[in-house]
Amino acid sequence: MSEQTKYLLEENQMPRFWYNIQADLPTPAPAVLHPGTLQPVGPADLAPLFPMDLILQEVSQEREIEIPEPVRDVFRLWRPAPLYRARRLEKLLGTPAKIFYKYEGVSPAGSHKPNTAIPQAFYNQQSGVKRLVTETGAGQWGTSLAFAGSLFGLTVEVFQVRVSYDQKPYRRAVMETYGARCVASPSMETVFGRSVLEKTPDHPGSLGIAISEAVELAVQREDTKYALGSVLNHVLLHQTIIGQEAMEQMKMADTWPDVVIGCAGGGSNFAGIAFPFIGHGLRGGQKSRALAVEPAACPSLTRGKYAYDFGDTGRMTPLTKMHTLGSQFTPPGFHAGGLRYHGMASLVSHCKELGLVEAVAYHQVECFEAGVAFARCEGIVPAPESNHAVKGAIEEALRCKREGKAETILFCLSGHGHFDMASYQKYFAGELTDEGYDEVDLAASLLGLPQVP
Amino acid sequence: MSEQTKYLLEENQMPRFWYNIQADLPTPAPAVLHPGTLQPVGPADLAPLFPMDLILQEVSQEREIEIPEPVRDVFRLWRPAPLYRARRLEKLLGTPAKIFYKYEGVSPAGSHKPNTAIPQAFYNQQSGVKRLVTETGAGQWGTSLAFAGSLFGLTVEVFQVRVSYDQKPYRRAVMETYGARCVASPSMETVFGRSVLEKTPDHPGSLGIAISEAVELAVQREDTKYALGSVLNHVLLHQTIIGQEAMEQMKMADTWPDVVIGCAGGGSNFAGIAFPFIGHGLRGGQKSRALAVEPAACPSLTRGKYAYDFGDTGRMTPLTKMHTLGSQFTPPGFHAGGLRYHGMASLVSHCKELGLVEAVAYHQVECFEAGVAFARCEGIVPAPESNHAVKGAIEEALRCKREGKAETILFCLSGHGHFDMASYQKYFAGELTDEGYDEVDLAASLLGLPQVP
Repeated sequence: MSEQTKYLLEENQMPRFWYNIQADLPTPAPAVLHPGTLQPVGPADLAPLFPMDLILQEVSQEREIEIPEPVRDVFRLWRPAPLYRARRLEKLLGTPAKIFYKYEGVSPAGSHKPNTAIPQAFYNQQSGVKRLVTETGAGQWGTSLAFAGSLFGLTVEVFQVRVSYDQKPYRRAVMETYGARCVASPSMETVFGRSVLEKTPDHPGSLGIAISEAVELAVQREDTKYALGSVLNHVLLHQTIIGQEAMEQMKMADTWPDVVIGCAGGGSNFAGIAFPFIGHGLRGGQKSRALAVEPAACPSLTRGKYAYDFGDTGRMTPLTKMHTLGSQFTPPGFHAGGLRYHGMASLVSHCKELGLVEAVAYHQVECFEAGVAFARCEGIVPAPESNHAVKGAIEEALRCKREGKAETILFCLSGHGHFDMASYQKYFAGELTDEGYDEVDLAASLLGLPQVP
Repeated sequence: MSEQTKYLLEENQMPRFWYNIQADLPTPAPAVLHPGTLQPVGPADLAPLFPMDLILQEVSQEREIEIPEPVRDVFRLWRPAPLYRARRLEKLLGTPAKIFYKYEGVSPAGSHKPNTAIPQAFYNQQSGVKRLVTETGAGQWGTSLAFAGSLFGLTVEVFQVRVSYDQKPYRRAVMETYGARCVASPSMETVFGRSVLEKTPDHPGSLGIAISEAVELAVQREDTKYALGSVLNHVLLHQTIIGQEAMEQMKMADTWPDVVIGCAGGGSNFAGIAFPFIGHGLRGGQKSRALAVEPAACPSLTRGKYAYDFGDTGRMTPLTKMHTLGSQFTPPGFHAGGLRYHGMASLVSHCKELGLVEAVAYHQVECFEAGVAFARCEGIVPAPESNHAVKGAIEEALRCKREGKAETILFCLSGHGHFDMASYQKYFAGELTDEGYDEVDLAASLLGLPQVP
């Protein structure tokens, strides 16, 4: 019998509650403000966008929030998700560290995103909603919401950032297979989209613009709500199922992570794996470092300003205090589309300010290098986003080697790269560069931050 | 608690032996003949192509052949594979039948192919081989051998049918991510490839031609062997892990299949799920029908001739008695590339002659329809090849509905369609047709069958 590399939970070990870190934080995260009044928003302000169950989760201070049985029933298609020990990668690196990864690519949509798409579709269906609108960049979120919509009988419309819409027709085909309608953003279907196209007819789009378009449609119709795949408290809450499962699996492996790592764009998969461990430490349990890995080309946590900002380019959303590059920031066209967001989740940002979260940024070429090494050792081809977490884990393992420390490293492999092979192709062809990324000029876009006293 | 839909085995329930149907057949399959002497081939004849362990498996009459521990160790990355009950699909069809599917797309390469790629790489490495050459059509087999080679330190070279090489650059990128070299076939790297290109410079290629090229290279160098992803006895043997696991899972579900269904190109995933059930029936256990579903555009089992034929277009391989469309047959360019092979595995053909296997053929458009319906119910987007099995299962379920029978249907979902979304895209755009497929003219290519007394 060889050494164990896979740690599987029984179905009945699937968590019954999401973990809400707000219950354990020493100080609460700053309030979300209404952009007009600059007063804290209440549930009523959010009601045009989200069903009440999700709004209540957004503001809840309860430590545990029950996962509804119909949601757990769908989760059983792929959850509990496996946790692996990357023994072949350890050997390649010659590190004394133990490297574990939690693999979320086993979901039908291929990433962690269905962890929140399923409950969001469920709560919307329960409240009588017929149609969900959303935005997507690389397409992982759009795919996941399309999948969730097909299971709960909801119509799903996805505003996809135009550059991805054009470059990734296969991702669109997946969304259509699940029955969703996909629209290139900026589009002619919204006032805001038309205003952008008027000024710049060939605008490549951005997540911020796509959000504005989706929000605009959602508020117009009673039977239509908006769904967001990251950033918001309830989204991060839903993702904590990752970390909670991982905690059980680390016990099975008879160890505990010294450091927990995730890639961070909006922050949801990072929070999903890290928050349960942070909370464990805050409640007196063994502490783990929590390390967010972001792209050098969109470095909100490492180079952004901690300030109130809009979540979208059209300045329709409430104001959230977060690490931001400015809502008018357009990140360079690098290949981890899921990490191309100007801001960071409020709760992740707050944890960074509290010293509970560290952050580091890497360039895309070194992240692809890490991903290819990982694939050749462990068999799974990671999504470009996940490559950032792989890179972070490898760097920690090499540090352990230098320091002669046998630490335990845990990272979230948030998804597979099956729909992102064009980026790998460019990487192999030597067509990817990091040029200009270090010189990303933030001054201009930060100047546009809203004035909040 | 909702009704169970997923049946998972423990890791220690993973089969320790492959099942060899040759031990249970009432009459042995016809011998494989040397193309020159027309005498049965012996192990020595095959030694230039395969390591001795695989040759011995090819001719073994033992019922159980042990799976080596290093192979099981790699299998643990994704095996045992899950078995699901398709309750949402049953509801959609309104059938009294129970539909189960065994999902092989959980492997890192996304299909059942690693079940044989891993042991083939292992036995080759054990015997001192440094390089494996093979062919691939759609790319599932090439991806799997590339994956296996990366784990066992073997150089892998893949001759990919040119039309797929050009149409599916992403599949090639996956093979390169695993470190394999990919060559469009027909190529200038072999005598046979050059001879084809001389006559037809823009030849689209075929599996038969790619096999000829790979075989030609393999016999030239001592440290190089050939690997085949379907058709051969040892390949079918390796795939029986699918059916063996499924038998345990059917027991967990407290039922037994009335019919076991798989798509059939070369026959390996079909044999993998069906042979253990057929053997169970032959040994006095409860009998199950075994139904192979093939494409109407390449209908070897339903319209081919049961005769001795070559496995490749270049006529380099031994002669095998099988259902064949003729080794010079070039199937029309339909989208289930993995089913574009002129012949059927000898053991599957023999079982068909013995009345142990039934066959049916469907057109590609109706198969895509079935696959999309499945994806919207069950969340998994099937490979175009697997869509044939889905279609077969749906038709059986509708027959049960007409006949008012609550039968149990089991099918093999051999892989996901993540690398095949271009075909789905064409399906949605209405660009797929079945035109001309029923008129596939077999007379000419069957005239070219070798004369065997």
